[in-house]
Amino acid sequence: MQKYSKLFGKTLREAPKDATLVSHKLLVQAGFIRESSAGRYFFLPLGMRVRDKIVKIIEEEMNNAGAQKMLSPTLHPIELWKETNRTNTTGFELMKIKDRRGAEFALGGTAEEMFVDIVRKFRLTYKDLPLNIYQFSDKFRDELRARGGLLRVREFLMKDAYSFDRNEEEFKKVYKNMWEAYYSIFKKIGLESKAVLADNGYIGGEYCHEFIVDCDAGESCYLQSKDGSYIAHKDVAKFMREEVNPDEEIKAMETVEQPEWVKTMKDNEKHYKLPSSRFLKNVVYKNRVTGEIIISVIRGDLEINKTKLEHVLDAVEQLQEASDEDLESIGTKSGYVHSWGHEKARYIGDLSLKTVKNFIGGQKEDKTDTINVNYGRDFKCEILADIALAKEGYKSESGQILLEKKGVEVGNIFQLGYHYSTKMKDATFIDEDNQSKPYYMGCYGIGIGRTLATVVELHNDEKGIIWPQSIAPYDFHLITLGNNENELALDLISKLEASGKEVLWDDRTDASMGEKLADADLIGIPNRIILTKRSLEGGGVEIKKRNETEAKIVPLSYFW
Amino acid sequence: MQKYSKLFGKTLREAPKDATLVSHKLLVQAGFIRESSAGRYFFLPLGMRVRDKIVKIIEEEMNNAGAQKMLSPTLHPIELWKETNRTNTTGFELMKIKDRRGAEFALGGTAEEMFVDIVRKFRLTYKDLPLNIYQFSDKFRDELRARGGLLRVREFLMKDAYSFDRNEEEFKKVYKNMWEAYYSIFKKIGLESKAVLADNGYIGGEYCHEFIVDCDAGESCYLQSKDGSYIAHKDVAKFMREEVNPDEEIKAMETVEQPEWVKTMKDNEKHYKLPSSRFLKNVVYKNRVTGEIIISVIRGDLEINKTKLEHVLDAVEQLQEASDEDLESIGTKSGYVHSWGHEKARYIGDLSLKTVKNFIGGQKEDKTDTINVNYGRDFKCEILADIALAKEGYKSESGQILLEKKGVEVGNIFQLGYHYSTKMKDATFIDEDNQSKPYYMGCYGIGIGRTLATVVELHNDEKGIIWPQSIAPYDFHLITLGNNENELALDLISKLEASGKEVLWDDRTDASMGEKLADADLIGIPNRIILTKRSLEGGGVEIKKRNETEAKIVPLSYFW
Repeated sequence: MQKYSKLFGKTLREAPKDATLVSHKLLVQAGFIRESSAGRYFFLPLGMRVRDKIVKIIEEEMNNAGAQKMLSPTLHPIELWKETNRTNTTGFELMKIKDRRGAEFALGGTAEEMFVDIVRKFRLTYKDLPLNIYQFSDKFRDELRARGGLLRVREFLMKDAYSFDRNEEEFKKVYKNMWEAYYSIFKKIGLESKAVLADNGYIGGEYCHEFIVDCDAGESCYLQSKDGSYIAHKDVAKFMREEVNPDEEIKAMETVEQPEWVKTMKDNEKHYKLPSSRFLKNVVYKNRVTGEIIISVIRGDLEINKTKLEHVLDAVEQLQEASDEDLESIGTKSGYVHSWGHEKARYIGDLSLKTVKNFIGGQKEDKTDTINVNYGRDFKCEILADIALAKEGYKSESGQILLEKKGVEVGNIFQLGYHYSTKMKDATFIDEDNQSKPYYMGCYGIGIGRTLATVVELHNDEKGIIWPQSIAPYDFHLITLGNNENELALDLISKLEASGKEVLWDDRTDASMGEKLADADLIGIPNRIILTKRSLEGGGVEIKKRNETEAKIVPLSYFW
Repeated sequence: MQKYSKLFGKTLREAPKDATLVSHKLLVQAGFIRESSAGRYFFLPLGMRVRDKIVKIIEEEMNNAGAQKMLSPTLHPIELWKETNRTNTTGFELMKIKDRRGAEFALGGTAEEMFVDIVRKFRLTYKDLPLNIYQFSDKFRDELRARGGLLRVREFLMKDAYSFDRNEEEFKKVYKNMWEAYYSIFKKIGLESKAVLADNGYIGGEYCHEFIVDCDAGESCYLQSKDGSYIAHKDVAKFMREEVNPDEEIKAMETVEQPEWVKTMKDNEKHYKLPSSRFLKNVVYKNRVTGEIIISVIRGDLEINKTKLEHVLDAVEQLQEASDEDLESIGTKSGYVHSWGHEKARYIGDLSLKTVKNFIGGQKEDKTDTINVNYGRDFKCEILADIALAKEGYKSESGQILLEKKGVEVGNIFQLGYHYSTKMKDATFIDEDNQSKPYYMGCYGIGIGRTLATVVELHNDEKGIIWPQSIAPYDFHLITLGNNENELALDLISKLEASGKEVLWDDRTDASMGEKLADADLIGIPNRIILTKRSLEGGGVEIKKRNETEAKIVPLSYFW
């Protein structure tokens, strides 16, 4: 039992002025967290209890799934990150530090290298596999902007697991296993999560899912088919490209005169009185690593998805918008890019090029343009692939309307494949055939603070937080007034504790019943008990659930 | 249940070659820890389990003692450390890091500033006190040398608690409370600890104890009176100075001729045929902050304790041995320092100056010296105080022989007094009289890894570790051979687990009974069960405690 009079981190009269998110406001105001520097938080005793309970749920589920808990140091020898070239390629900002002997370390942002390093120290064989090891450890991200509260911070506790398998087949079992464990973890914490297909960056591959909880405060946008059967990030979402004019007859391509005012897509639509889907559109990129100029060609009503395009070109995080000089280097300028014929550029076309008969555009000049352009007959791209951005309202491949959703990414699971195990020396096991083979790896993360904040985003009302029982800081919030009921209160508390319940006792003698009730609602413990002279006259104690409005009076013996 | 065949971190054939300490050897060889970089360790699954159990014991005892668990960020804004000038005065090497916005942080070595900072954010009153808040968090020390294993490392988990009280009187209650909690914590972990009076550095004061476990591998030297009633670090230990020649008559001081070969103390003893205790000795220091030259004067058989001298001068960590130039600056040279008369120096005398009649020495020149020198009559120091180093064989103040002991410091408790609360702005509470007053603070630490290693230093035999039940990675180590007993084994395991026991099952089919027994002894789980065809023929299973030699056969029903 914790007496509220002595609890460190009491409620504040007002939420922090700069807070915009509900979880930020409530967690600070109710005394769960407090900012240290921007993006770095103290967990106060109430917040610590919730955090510990979340950790425990995750730990139990991970253990049940056969994963083994361990821990790597926080300071990672920089040499390991150099082995995988991650000092240059991390998606987040790596913090580095030198000790006084000049040794350099990375402050762990994720721990792939560390886990590969410890695993390779043991010369494992196929008999040791499958292996799934995890840790709870502080992660550091040198974010430029840290959003309010625990949703995006610079320092946070993360559960990160790494699996080591013989091959993709075995990995897939672990992936499924983790997938199920994640659903179960979030469900126990009080969150309905969805596995959303996501982009796996330079590692690629089809096994990459974010666990997202729908929530307006979230930063993750994704598309979901109306029947829920398809859920994917905009970055990777596929969609159906319907025929635009299937009944039209194919005509001969011709070059026609065009008034000079026709410059933009809008101008074209006006001039030809046709929708944008009838026009060809070109978007030009430069590969900042190779210097190549890429012309992506797409149906006029669609947009290029740079992530997809990069994957097609095996050039993840390498493309940037072409500059005027880049266009000049291939002999053209903005507004006059041709859908074919610039010999110094590579042409990549979207699948949508095959859904239109008689495209307009393709070789626009000042006073002319081409019409009745047909893909295959009049021009061809080096590669034709899915490089278009899916949007709300498009249809999924199975024909369902796609809806745009927003949520918080509370966890993710993704393959690492052979990426780390081939980049790092000796990251191999001895297989049954006595050969050394690299591990097929996977990675599985959960952000603890972000999960906690998401619960608050979704479980609250105008009075405060409503904690799910499973992660509530205490089971019961007991309120007394004055000291006359202390003996009865202590007796009640010992009864509750004997049955494994945890109690926060508001024993203050300098707070009114009104203040106490407001604090109880703000803090959000699932069960409230009022034990006062008045309640005793009414028959015992008043109990009320935080998520219900009705209170009831029960005799003290109710708890015996 | 964990199958040993799939356990990550199996035993090694040999201990690491560079390991000298038993705990280092055994913890690595048995698969509990593994080095990352020097002084930074991975905790493997077995080690993690032990560590978690130690953490849990500490947490329970701290909570029982009324402390509240919370957590501060790992990166401490450097401004806080500047408020207390600790960027310059830490006893350990502070690691610093800048983020990309230029903000500077300390990697927490201890967290006084952070805890004061969070406490001052809440405007507490006397009603919120006493307050004792603690955390488990990674600590970083940029040690030049990291000893083998977990005994002295560069990164470690520490439980650090900070108490905030109205005054010294209230603080003393918390101090006593923590003192008792510490004994209880270490006892539960399987360690007999002693509270050893220790030096509190620049904070000073009488409330400073190290919790030491006697152990040859330890680096803490202390003195203990034969009856155990007095235990103190050499830095602070007091002792009885007996009269050297109480019956001698006091003579008149005179300057006598002395052969030139008499230079050292040994020469003097030889020349005068008297023990060193009859001579005056001078040791010269320079205060590196003020530039002052200090001549400390002491009985010839005793040594100066620099720590005590610094406290007398209120110059903690400021004294260094005087150089030849320093001696020159006060008009003398090595071997010719006078016990009085160097006007540019300050004289500090030890209490022992009053225990000798007719000292020899005091104004040594090339061919002369003074004899029959008596303190008070012939010379006087600016301060006369306890500045002598206690040693084994001396008597305690109550007359008991002092013995020198060696141990590991597993924890410490000490007052911070008003040090931080006066250096840091607004670190005040509102007292009953409505006045703002600074907190009287205390600090209480336990090193988790060091405690773990100390257990292994003390609980082992030539075959391996012998874990105390309370922190053993598992309760039972079950051994089978082949697959025929698997069904029975699983049944037995489920019975044990149903009664709350944890089981490591050596299910390997490619290891001999000899290897399995050796591994079981090395790992050191308290109870071993052998379930084989042979044991079944013998009547059931063989059970043996790790710390006993006798095994017994019991029927399987023994566990039902």
